[in-house]
Amino acid sequence: MSFCATQDTASDVGKTTSMTSLDHYRNQYRAALLDDCIPFWEKHCPDRDYGGYFTCLDRDGTVYDTEKFMWMQWRIVWMFSELCSKLGTRTEWLDIARLGYDFLTTHGKDDKGRYYFALSREGRPTMAPYSVYSDCFAVMGAAAYYRVSGDEAARREALRAYNSYLSREHRPKGEWTKELEGRPPMRKLGFYMMKANLLAVLEECLSDPTFRAEALATVRYVLGTFWNPDMKVMFEFVRADGSFDLESMQGRHLTPGHALEAMWFIMNSAYRAGETQLVERAADVVRATLDFGWDPEYGGIYYFMDALGKPHVELQWNMKLWWVHNEALVATAMAHQLTGREEFA
Amino acid sequence: MSFCATQDTASDVGKTTSMTSLDHYRNQYRAALLDDCIPFWEKHCPDRDYGGYFTCLDRDGTVYDTEKFMWMQWRIVWMFSELCSKLGTRTEWLDIARLGYDFLTTHGKDDKGRYYFALSREGRPTMAPYSVYSDCFAVMGAAAYYRVSGDEAARREALRAYNSYLSREHRPKGEWTKELEGRPPMRKLGFYMMKANLLAVLEECLSDPTFRAEALATVRYVLGTFWNPDMKVMFEFVRADGSFDLESMQGRHLTPGHALEAMWFIMNSAYRAGETQLVERAADVVRATLDFGWDPEYGGIYYFMDALGKPHVELQWNMKLWWVHNEALVATAMAHQLTGREEFA
Repeated sequence: MSFCATQDTASDVGKTTSMTSLDHYRNQYRAALLDDCIPFWEKHCPDRDYGGYFTCLDRDGTVYDTEKFMWMQWRIVWMFSELCSKLGTRTEWLDIARLGYDFLTTHGKDDKGRYYFALSREGRPTMAPYSVYSDCFAVMGAAAYYRVSGDEAARREALRAYNSYLSREHRPKGEWTKELEGRPPMRKLGFYMMKANLLAVLEECLSDPTFRAEALATVRYVLGTFWNPDMKVMFEFVRADGSFDLESMQGRHLTPGHALEAMWFIMNSAYRAGETQLVERAADVVRATLDFGWDPEYGGIYYFMDALGKPHVELQWNMKLWWVHNEALVATAMAHQLTGREEFA
Repeated sequence: MSFCATQDTASDVGKTTSMTSLDHYRNQYRAALLDDCIPFWEKHCPDRDYGGYFTCLDRDGTVYDTEKFMWMQWRIVWMFSELCSKLGTRTEWLDIARLGYDFLTTHGKDDKGRYYFALSREGRPTMAPYSVYSDCFAVMGAAAYYRVSGDEAARREALRAYNSYLSREHRPKGEWTKELEGRPPMRKLGFYMMKANLLAVLEECLSDPTFRAEALATVRYVLGTFWNPDMKVMFEFVRADGSFDLESMQGRHLTPGHALEAMWFIMNSAYRAGETQLVERAADVVRATLDFGWDPEYGGIYYFMDALGKPHVELQWNMKLWWVHNEALVATAMAHQLTGREEFA
């Protein structure tokens, strides 16, 4: 990871990134996942009484809240399904995936087919379907579960949830939207970043190449709309006419972790479609985002930033979150693999 | 401030809290307020073109966002009105208060009389009236402005906004409520804490002693409902039947800054009503909150806590915010003044 070092040190680090050290990291991550992380979740997360999962787990596995938050629930369906896809099906993993899939498809949707934000342990809706990302994680979970189960209903659910997601493009929060007409409508990076990812997931899990053209169009839209080539930053919001708003806190708001996440989604889609130039452009954005988002004093990547360095409205703006650094690891590893550029080694 | 010291050191600190050192702090705070803080706001916050105030100000006074957030707008009306009440009316202060009062009462309300969360610079609604605290700060601002302006319309507005606040007791967020029937309804400390404060403000600013009985009833409700005498913590949420919910993150959620703020509101009301015992009980809560909320390693008071020490869902839970420490300064100074107990010196 040369971006956190000075130029000279970066070269030294580059030289030590041999296949041996890659093997070392591969073994380290594999062991952490399969010998530590996954066994913990296999043991403590399934709710065998009601279905679904416990996700608020203390270090010793104690459940400290039983509410079932949709993002996490569907992510667990996705995770155990993907483990089967990538490492070979194990009955216990498939059973855990089904435990969530059945619970969520039975209890999770309102009468418009939108996934709630959360359910009670028993499956009663506790939080309104105000987040379009609930639908989004349902697409990924159902598609991944279809791939390993072959359950046609899961395939249909993935496509249905994707259409529900798309239908909410211009008002993702529905009737819980707080923004009124005095605040000009904005387009949000998160929506299109996830759209690109969902299309890649549907193509892969449903073995359906018809999603590829739309995925590439979305990739081009993200790079062409949210990336500001003069300032070299990826904006989180642009105006409906595609212009950047440097006058407001919302317009200047940046989330480096999102930019990094979006770029590995994009490199993934672009590489599969043989679009080398798009891969290189996304790798340039990864590089620029690390340059802009890196804290030169203490290291680490900021959570939120202001494009002009003005004070940020969110208290947690300067926190260094684990997920952001995971996205950076994935994005730089992928950029290195696909472009061969030493700066990502 | 002995709560941050060991017992021995606390005694030493206590001994040095003489009238001389109190005079020293009084002069220091007065100078910081009148020679530094207020002149900055007088100069940079008034929007002479459209009315209302700029509140997103960089250190040099540059405006970095022009949106007009209701909490801050009404707080500025309150602040310049109170400066006139406490230090003698100055035309420029009263003019600034009127600049906001006129703008907010003209543009700030929806058709149900609820104050929006925010307006554009020109006065168009930008954020829906989903926060009952917008109404709350309107009560305080309008009441304080009435006291110095004698404008009867401001008196009526304070009372009207108070009734709007009260009418939202059981569903404060109105149609923007995300909690559904699967999550049992809870009573929130913030609502009743502010109710107690609003009643004291109305009594004082409107010179109307008829608010006193309801204020005392609210004080007793807060102390009797949200304070857990066994655990010695002030809960942020209790179930509708008054019981504590130790099973959920929401039920265990604590905000020490709120508890401290609530206690100085309560000491203020109780003292004015001659209820010495209530003052002592509130002072006990201040003491217990400082004991529970204080970080023994680095000092300072946590933003959010879990009553049983479980992981907290909010990323910013362990931040040490300025407002919390301001509430602690006010609460301990008041507790010391009203009870004479050395532990608060």
